[in-house]
Amino acid sequence: MTNTQVTHVQIDNYGPWTVTPEPRREVDLQTLQSRLYADLAQLFGNHDGYLFFSRFDNMIAVTNGLDRADHARIQESVGNRYPVSTSLSVATAETPAAALGAATERLQRAGSAQDDGRREVLETDVLPAAERTGTDVQLAHFDVDDATGKYTDQLNEFDTFIRIEQGYAALMKYMRFAHDSLSFFVGGDNVIAVCSALDHEDYRDAIEHVEETVGVELKVGVGRARTAATAGMDAKHALETCRETGRPVTFADEG
Amino acid sequence: MTNTQVTHVQIDNYGPWTVTPEPRREVDLQTLQSRLYADLAQLFGNHDGYLFFSRFDNMIAVTNGLDRADHARIQESVGNRYPVSTSLSVATAETPAAALGAATERLQRAGSAQDDGRREVLETDVLPAAERTGTDVQLAHFDVDDATGKYTDQLNEFDTFIRIEQGYAALMKYMRFAHDSLSFFVGGDNVIAVCSALDHEDYRDAIEHVEETVGVELKVGVGRARTAATAGMDAKHALETCRETGRPVTFADEG
Amino acid sequence: MTNTQVTHVQIDNYGPWTVTPEPRREVDLQTLQSRLYADLAQLFGNHDGYLFFSRFDNMIAVTNGLDRADHARIQESVGNRYPVSTSLSVATAETPAAALGAATERLQRAGSAQDDGRREVLETDVLPAAERTGTDVQLAHFDVDDATGKYTDQLNEFDTFIRIEQGYAALMKYMRFAHDSLSFFVGGDNVIAVCSALDHEDYRDAIEHVEETVGVELKVGVGRARTAATAGMDAKHALETCRETGRPVTFADEG
Amino acid sequence: MTNTQVTHVQIDNYGPWTVTPEPRREVDLQTLQSRLYADLAQLFGNHDGYLFFSRFDNMIAVTNGLDRADHARIQESVGNRYPVSTSLSVATAETPAAALGAATERLQRAGSAQDDGRREVLETDVLPAAERTGTDVQLAHFDVDDATGKYTDQLNEFDTFIRIEQGYAALMKYMRFAHDSLSFFVGGDNVIAVCSALDHEDYRDAIEHVEETVGVELKVGVGRARTAATAGMDAKHALETCRETGRPVTFADEG
Repeated sequence: MTNTQVTHVQIDNYGPWTVTPEPRREVDLQTLQSRLYADLAQLFGNHDGYLFFSRFDNMIAVTNGLDRADHARIQESVGNRYPVSTSLSVATAETPAAALGAATERLQRAGSAQDDGRREVLETDVLPAAERTGTDVQLAHFDVDDATGKYTDQLNEFDTFIRIEQGYAALMKYMRFAHDSLSFFVGGDNVIAVCSALDHEDYRDAIEHVEETVGVELKVGVGRARTAATAGMDAKHALETCRETGRPVTFADEG
Repeated sequence: MTNTQVTHVQIDNYGPWTVTPEPRREVDLQTLQSRLYADLAQLFGNHDGYLFFSRFDNMIAVTNGLDRADHARIQESVGNRYPVSTSLSVATAETPAAALGAATERLQRAGSAQDDGRREVLETDVLPAAERTGTDVQLAHFDVDDATGKYTDQLNEFDTFIRIEQGYAALMKYMRFAHDSLSFFVGGDNVIAVCSALDHEDYRDAIEHVEETVGVELKVGVGRARTAATAGMDAKHALETCRETGRPVTFADEG
Repeated sequence: MTNTQVTHVQIDNYGPWTVTPEPRREVDLQTLQSRLYADLAQLFGNHDGYLFFSRFDNMIAVTNGLDRADHARIQESVGNRYPVSTSLSVATAETPAAALGAATERLQRAGSAQDDGRREVLETDVLPAAERTGTDVQLAHFDVDDATGKYTDQLNEFDTFIRIEQGYAALMKYMRFAHDSLSFFVGGDNVIAVCSALDHEDYRDAIEHVEETVGVELKVGVGRARTAATAGMDAKHALETCRETGRPVTFADEG
Repeated sequence: MTNTQVTHVQIDNYGPWTVTPEPRREVDLQTLQSRLYADLAQLFGNHDGYLFFSRFDNMIAVTNGLDRADHARIQESVGNRYPVSTSLSVATAETPAAALGAATERLQRAGSAQDDGRREVLETDVLPAAERTGTDVQLAHFDVDDATGKYTDQLNEFDTFIRIEQGYAALMKYMRFAHDSLSFFVGGDNVIAVCSALDHEDYRDAIEHVEETVGVELKVGVGRARTAATAGMDAKHALETCRETGRPVTFADEG
């Protein structure tokens, strides 16, 4: 059992803002979105949380260890520095999907993403400090086996991107529906999944599924800890062990 | 016929750098990648180019109007401000895929993406100023019909993301293999495609293909101009016309 | 008595780097410096510290509440995202000037600011948690009385700037040599001083000194707290009270 | 004779915004200001202009070569990405001070810096392309002789800062009132002055004035060109020649 605290970040009324009074230049929207993501990644990261960009106007974070005050301050900091505001909704559950489901639902009850009157919602059903344990968060760091040799140095960049994207699309769906886990592309050939309590066999199955479906070979390192930052760093080290040993699945505590 | 100038941007030896001497914190890598993207988007955008983040360590830009000196300066500016350097390879062809193919190939000939000795390659086969015309670039701006009403306000955010991602995965493959066109997710429910010379029926077919394959309904505005910035802005206005008229495909010059 | 923990931040070997192998473009250096300042301000600020840009290649922070691990992580984060590295030296004393003196001295003992072999020094003589109190930090927020009416809306912008700059130059010297306090221009017509234990009369004297010397009228709000963030916010509220009451000096606890 | 085009950048109604409805966190204001400066420096710099931060809420740029459309786009880009808007006023004259005087005056006529109804003023009296010459802009790059050896490695950082600041205060006033030139501290021990047509003796006088007044020894490299970027880079190279030869004043064309 994991106990994942998930935060749904939503830019308020963003779609209408991007075309009012006229469509805004795409380059400025791209700059705004990617910098907002970078700033929020740092703000959550300073408290050992992980933020994923997903759709940029809606982002998803693992926030075990951040309380209501931390979220309020992050929301305030964005409001002080950006032309848009954000709503934050936090929930906790035994699986990441269930936690996100609860978070999104509370946000939806407060109003539509395009309701001009719904601003800076702050719903924070955080995991009480007393209930936190050293195994609440399981993160898995996947990458594509020898992506540089097989793709980047061989194909045109878009065709490489198609392979990576296909692998990601297959993995994200499988992990979501088989395991209530949330997988995010994080650049290059890397995917980080926020997982429920999965074991070796679950990960081997996921890797096999992706290889059979789209022919992309993955390997994965897995970490489990009190916070996303620690679980994520442990997963990276475990993935390095995969590289050294050739094993496709490594858990951090296997050394 | 279009005449698209495409730039392949590749961070030099990035993968090894991210794990040397130890894996670097993911939050810092995410910040680095998204800010580098934002800065490059501005640098290309100031000359009316468009940059897409694609895999972040490899990015693809439409750069009609930028010459070798412009690219050299962008490369220098990144080198002055980041701990990583970039290689840039530019090529032009009648289709975006062919242009990118030529650009990537020249980069690959210069060395591997993970060759520590290959740094700041600058290959610039630019479209001569005398050959430029007012219809060199065709950009199409797609979005999902009523994504907020159907998905964002109804499903948990990850399940919304899966729908958008599926739509994108289907579209990007179709456009690539049917039309040598390059499609990029740009956040929210938006995809921008860099196209060869396509007509109404081509776009209707693409939209039908996506709806039949994954059940996601798209609409699209199309612009054609001398530069990416103008073609892209025209495409946005055309997409607004789609919203007003209910037509799924609008070309900018249809008013 | 105050107990101020001060951090001296120094970019390693920065001068030589800016001209090697050739002088780098000023616009890139300015961008690098101001963004590094912004990032460090956020990193210290997330732990309730305050950073001042002073010379940009050397910056000074009030860091009560940040321990060695916090400093190590900030240093690592800069190293992961910038082409330059930083050295950090922390010390604590009853006056800000004494604390900074100790911090700088330890850094100088480790090597010259332009010693290419001296990198990422981390000297951390932090205030032990058990010795911290709710009055360790006194911050004073000064601004120029009616700067907009007297200067900004009347003179050309440089002549306004000269007045503000003169006021700052007079204040910073007086506060340093009369009170071992460190005053920093923070934009507009604002100066924030990190103070030893000063009272009303000390501040009135400082304001009179500046008015007599250079003819610039100041007012000041003063806060005192466990951290820079709280003392600074209290000082801002006290300065608002000055605006409302016309009193030139207000301490936060006067309401 | 020089022909300097100067742009006065002013954040609209900034002072009131920083305290409405309550004083905003200083760390967020500092981040906003320094990033806005960095972004504007890049936007002006991409067209070979130079921006100086001066007071951050009011900034001054040398913009020979930028027309009304360039300024409009910069203004629009800020409006798309920041919670504050900016007014821009451009003027040209034979001396930088006269140009700025005209620019500020037109801005003041449009309304107060704290007039909530005055937003995004765009006054652009630009130098016509046909009147531009290769010697319109003279920039001088000063630094302190052996600042690291005399100050940074010897004194506590604030006392070093006081020396640098005193040198700057003396220089900026002298250059303004003796030569209608505008001098800006740009970090470290560096000052860049936007000058009217000065010769060797003028610069020697300025350096002597500073040494006599505050005991700080300066040297200076001078460049003259069609744009700020070229004049500034030439000045840097000339300053390197000062370092090599020991001469306190070097003009770029002296080799």
